[in-house]
Amino acid sequence: MFMRMVFTVAVAGASGYAGGEMLRLLLQHPQAQIGAVTAHSNAGSTLGEHQPHLRRLADRVLQPTTPDALAGHDVVVLALPHGASGAVAAELAERDPATVVVDLGADHRLVDAADWVTYYGSEHAGTWPYGLPELLHTGEEVAAAQRAQLAGTTRIAVPGCNVTAVTLGLQPGVAAGVIEPVDVVAVLANGYSGAGKSLKPHLLASEGLGMAQPYAVGGTHRHIPEIAQNLRAAGAPEVTISFTPTLVPMSRGILATATARLVPGTDPAAVRAVWETAYADEPFVHLLPPGQWPTTAATLGANTALVQVAVDERAGRVVTVTAIDNLVKGTAGGALQSLNLALGLPETLGLPMDGVAP
Amino acid sequence: MFMRMVFTVAVAGASGYAGGEMLRLLLQHPQAQIGAVTAHSNAGSTLGEHQPHLRRLADRVLQPTTPDALAGHDVVVLALPHGASGAVAAELAERDPATVVVDLGADHRLVDAADWVTYYGSEHAGTWPYGLPELLHTGEEVAAAQRAQLAGTTRIAVPGCNVTAVTLGLQPGVAAGVIEPVDVVAVLANGYSGAGKSLKPHLLASEGLGMAQPYAVGGTHRHIPEIAQNLRAAGAPEVTISFTPTLVPMSRGILATATARLVPGTDPAAVRAVWETAYADEPFVHLLPPGQWPTTAATLGANTALVQVAVDERAGRVVTVTAIDNLVKGTAGGALQSLNLALGLPETLGLPMDGVAP
Amino acid sequence: MFMRMVFTVAVAGASGYAGGEMLRLLLQHPQAQIGAVTAHSNAGSTLGEHQPHLRRLADRVLQPTTPDALAGHDVVVLALPHGASGAVAAELAERDPATVVVDLGADHRLVDAADWVTYYGSEHAGTWPYGLPELLHTGEEVAAAQRAQLAGTTRIAVPGCNVTAVTLGLQPGVAAGVIEPVDVVAVLANGYSGAGKSLKPHLLASEGLGMAQPYAVGGTHRHIPEIAQNLRAAGAPEVTISFTPTLVPMSRGILATATARLVPGTDPAAVRAVWETAYADEPFVHLLPPGQWPTTAATLGANTALVQVAVDERAGRVVTVTAIDNLVKGTAGGALQSLNLALGLPETLGLPMDGVAP
Amino acid sequence: MFMRMVFTVAVAGASGYAGGEMLRLLLQHPQAQIGAVTAHSNAGSTLGEHQPHLRRLADRVLQPTTPDALAGHDVVVLALPHGASGAVAAELAERDPATVVVDLGADHRLVDAADWVTYYGSEHAGTWPYGLPELLHTGEEVAAAQRAQLAGTTRIAVPGCNVTAVTLGLQPGVAAGVIEPVDVVAVLANGYSGAGKSLKPHLLASEGLGMAQPYAVGGTHRHIPEIAQNLRAAGAPEVTISFTPTLVPMSRGILATATARLVPGTDPAAVRAVWETAYADEPFVHLLPPGQWPTTAATLGANTALVQVAVDERAGRVVTVTAIDNLVKGTAGGALQSLNLALGLPETLGLPMDGVAP
Repeated sequence: MFMRMVFTVAVAGASGYAGGEMLRLLLQHPQAQIGAVTAHSNAGSTLGEHQPHLRRLADRVLQPTTPDALAGHDVVVLALPHGASGAVAAELAERDPATVVVDLGADHRLVDAADWVTYYGSEHAGTWPYGLPELLHTGEEVAAAQRAQLAGTTRIAVPGCNVTAVTLGLQPGVAAGVIEPVDVVAVLANGYSGAGKSLKPHLLASEGLGMAQPYAVGGTHRHIPEIAQNLRAAGAPEVTISFTPTLVPMSRGILATATARLVPGTDPAAVRAVWETAYADEPFVHLLPPGQWPTTAATLGANTALVQVAVDERAGRVVTVTAIDNLVKGTAGGALQSLNLALGLPETLGLPMDGVAP
Repeated sequence: MFMRMVFTVAVAGASGYAGGEMLRLLLQHPQAQIGAVTAHSNAGSTLGEHQPHLRRLADRVLQPTTPDALAGHDVVVLALPHGASGAVAAELAERDPATVVVDLGADHRLVDAADWVTYYGSEHAGTWPYGLPELLHTGEEVAAAQRAQLAGTTRIAVPGCNVTAVTLGLQPGVAAGVIEPVDVVAVLANGYSGAGKSLKPHLLASEGLGMAQPYAVGGTHRHIPEIAQNLRAAGAPEVTISFTPTLVPMSRGILATATARLVPGTDPAAVRAVWETAYADEPFVHLLPPGQWPTTAATLGANTALVQVAVDERAGRVVTVTAIDNLVKGTAGGALQSLNLALGLPETLGLPMDGVAP
Repeated sequence: MFMRMVFTVAVAGASGYAGGEMLRLLLQHPQAQIGAVTAHSNAGSTLGEHQPHLRRLADRVLQPTTPDALAGHDVVVLALPHGASGAVAAELAERDPATVVVDLGADHRLVDAADWVTYYGSEHAGTWPYGLPELLHTGEEVAAAQRAQLAGTTRIAVPGCNVTAVTLGLQPGVAAGVIEPVDVVAVLANGYSGAGKSLKPHLLASEGLGMAQPYAVGGTHRHIPEIAQNLRAAGAPEVTISFTPTLVPMSRGILATATARLVPGTDPAAVRAVWETAYADEPFVHLLPPGQWPTTAATLGANTALVQVAVDERAGRVVTVTAIDNLVKGTAGGALQSLNLALGLPETLGLPMDGVAP
Repeated sequence: MFMRMVFTVAVAGASGYAGGEMLRLLLQHPQAQIGAVTAHSNAGSTLGEHQPHLRRLADRVLQPTTPDALAGHDVVVLALPHGASGAVAAELAERDPATVVVDLGADHRLVDAADWVTYYGSEHAGTWPYGLPELLHTGEEVAAAQRAQLAGTTRIAVPGCNVTAVTLGLQPGVAAGVIEPVDVVAVLANGYSGAGKSLKPHLLASEGLGMAQPYAVGGTHRHIPEIAQNLRAAGAPEVTISFTPTLVPMSRGILATATARLVPGTDPAAVRAVWETAYADEPFVHLLPPGQWPTTAATLGANTALVQVAVDERAGRVVTVTAIDNLVKGTAGGALQSLNLALGLPETLGLPMDGVAP
């Protein structure tokens, strides 16, 4: 006889895109039971007004985001603005240290407090186990170290969406020593949901439809130190990254073109095998067959990352392209995958394996 | 102890959009086991080349669509061009009369052979039980009659996608006698996947991005007699429909605005209750709260239909708006829902309830 | 020798879409000289921040919208919120009665003050000559009457964009008596720029990309009485209209499907000739060849309206489809066309005849 | 009194996107008179079927593309598949050496025949004056050398669209010696019209809507040697380029993010001045004010290129972003600009300066 454990989850920030996606995935998870759903300015309205795609939760009323509303759940997912999660997590830990807190925001991702200060301009809240199970650590079995950190943890810092895409693209080459992590260049095509529901003119449909526009150009994007941190984990002693995201007319998806110099003397023919080996056993990260390139459509709604790699011998660079759904593998899916590990559940439990295409 | 029945399914036309969507849903169905996947011109290639979003089937090789390939399964789903399914079904029945055949094409939808000849211009293949469980029949409990027809059947004719949207929008008013089914006007915003993978210039992304274009204007669309047939089932003695689909820049989705004259003397305030009653117990068809209007995004990837109704007293018309995902509730999802009934399974088993939004 | 008259134009509301489009067209008009550009909350910033596509005006600083800034020009174009133009126009007239004022807003469009009160809920500002040169008046030479009203006027009320599309589609049939203007049904696919730069969640790119959504359903849209007014001008004694706009993922464009009952006894074969005759000499309104349907892409950036008509004999309805660019023929282009008439210039002077496609 | 010269132009390949855009611009050119319009498989049909946005040419019948049809014009524009223009040009020169031939294809762009063989795999047709008036040549006044080559020429090789974007972004830094042309990395967001009207599955709207997909990854794109050639002209002794185009859901537009290493020891504060100086007098290439970034929407339909530059000191790279309309500045507009120079007309004559936005 099968005894199914059920865990209760509260979601703070449930009227936004990250919170909404977390709810979508939790609804499909066989052991999750959705408890409180909270919001800030939208408190008091129904979830159906903000997430009309989640029919089964349409009548749920959003509570204000307070410790009282969130406490008493096995798991609390925080989809809050940067800087807000530290205090909430502390209060929840005081009430019940066993509560598992999953932070979809940036507050607890960076190891180096100086990076935080430089890019976010406030005091660092501390570092939590990093929710990218596939993160490579040099000298170890593929991804074993990261999964070990997540097993049984009560704190998960979910990676930034762009970070996940670029890291998954490049880390096999770094770990295997076939690419140089100095002078990495990454340019991303990003869907608009990555910007959240901010009411800004350049995010209007009238503007976004039919145009491509860059943002945070020239080394200012906050995901840069996080990518560097990951590539250092993979074995890079020093990392420099030129990183440029561009908004393109799609709601979801990241297509990351990340390129790095081939280490001189490396046999180009041997490069593909490095990526094949790294991801051979990964359930969510897939190296595509030669000649097939990732598209964001193939990942829509799924927790998958599609990766391809090519060597440009004339340019002396390895070019990787990675496609993910920014809200799934890039946010809520990666979070749930890590939460499964934290709770001792099968890593893939309840996670969507198939994209919705076309 | 729970004994789980497993049924095997072959999908013919697996490299197309309807076939691909069927596979996506079957992968998530707890009792379906995917058998042969076949194609016509794409036979011999892998499914991964055509459906890169279905990672678990990526290495499957497409077989040619032949009776030999399809026979021997509990269920065969036909996603074939119009006119092709009759012969295949006959051959399968001869080999094993118990095989359940689900036809995603139009061949077996129409009751009146003359309608078929008029709109399709070939010989009629016969009529199968119609795979719209929510179809109302006058004088009966809501939808009971249609579900009875589907229970235990070995033949399912899956409705046209536009037909499903318009029927769900209008039928409550017809069945309750509050709208006149004469002089119905329906105009639809349609995503491009409804046109399949046909390589035609007006279906290119360069054309479709940023434009709206109508097609089959002026009463020529083949879904017209099928809508009329459904509204007659709902109790309309005579039906006339002006029907205009328009392609708009989205891959999936149908937003159907269907309007009919309010029966003179009807109290406008009583209209909403008619739709509320009709869909109160339906798991997949939802009347939205007053003031909230359906959007296609809220149905993406889900087997849901979102419906809203308003009375325009000055115009003397009832206006309904219905949103569905053309490939799910409009095709593969509706098919699987009907198949569940045919196999004696819970109607909602394995079907996606939540859209992927934004 | 040719003496070129130059007229000066001030544009109020120059940071919005309608104002920006007016500036784009004026830049290409051989006799217009752009004077003051004004704004409300954006005053003080450069035009380049809001209209980056108008390179030649990028350094112009937006002045506050005041009579002082606008006075002293031959022409003043008002792209202001509803209700704001009446007072400004009165002040300008007092300073110089010869100033030509072009109102892109709704304030002066409606003839019947009761319509204004019903749909806009405020006091009516009065009626100005209506800026749709092609408007048919029964019993007269095609469009002559409207052009006569505009010749030499100092006041132009520019039609609503949806109104222009629906009126151009249906009016030939009304004027010729082949369609019944009672029980007209119009459903429109609309680009997002029609909603202006309002910062509302449902207008975000993340929402709008990949979905269709209706608005102002059920007879509430303010363009309804204006359409009725136009069809009455064309000869309809009484008009009822069911009107539903739907936002679809494009920035510009309106595709209006407008249908009306064929007058019983009319020979369907004679219908096309009615539209052909009506628009044979129009420079901007084109009836397409049989079998070719309007697309919004073919009108992008141009002052053209593309029209097609079909008779659906089974449904007893005439179906018209009209495509325009909502910001050109639907707003700024129609305004400039009318202004040419007001100033005694050739009607087509400086107006874009060619769309930007694909 | 002004005597206006008129030149006649034939367009070969008039049913495609490049040919259609050439016609759109020629219609607006005050001295161009459109003569023969020819096509290959579409010969015999009207232009209105293929270019419905060009109303004034809608009834023109497409002739077969033959020397007889093209001869006898002052100018012939060739919008033909790669490899086809050499023979046509030779035949036209034999009939009348004064005919100006403008090749929108790739055949005559490359100086080094070996590059042609490597990337195009056929025999090189020879090199014509290169139609990028703004191309910098080291040691000379800005762009003077290129304009001198084009003045009075009877042969123009129009640059590739991606090449124009990347060259305009990077060349000031190369010419001024502040960036290293070795290890350039360019990633582009491209609209679908760049792929022409090819009927291929991955170019369908159903596929392209809502996804980003790369192509020609890993150093295989044919525009690479052409970019290198341009940067060598600007003064680079040796050039290596990693170049990745990605299709994103827009019909037109290129957003090129091109980055190169800052030459060690360069003062970052001095970099902007280099771009400012290079483009200060250019009528079509605009360096945006600090903090404003190019968008493709702002260039739609216009012959403009919008450029911005930033220094990422941590990464040691200069990042440039350039937006153009691939069919205007990237193809037909750049061609007409060069043709103006060839004919001794003002360089900007008849060219659109304003984009169509939003």
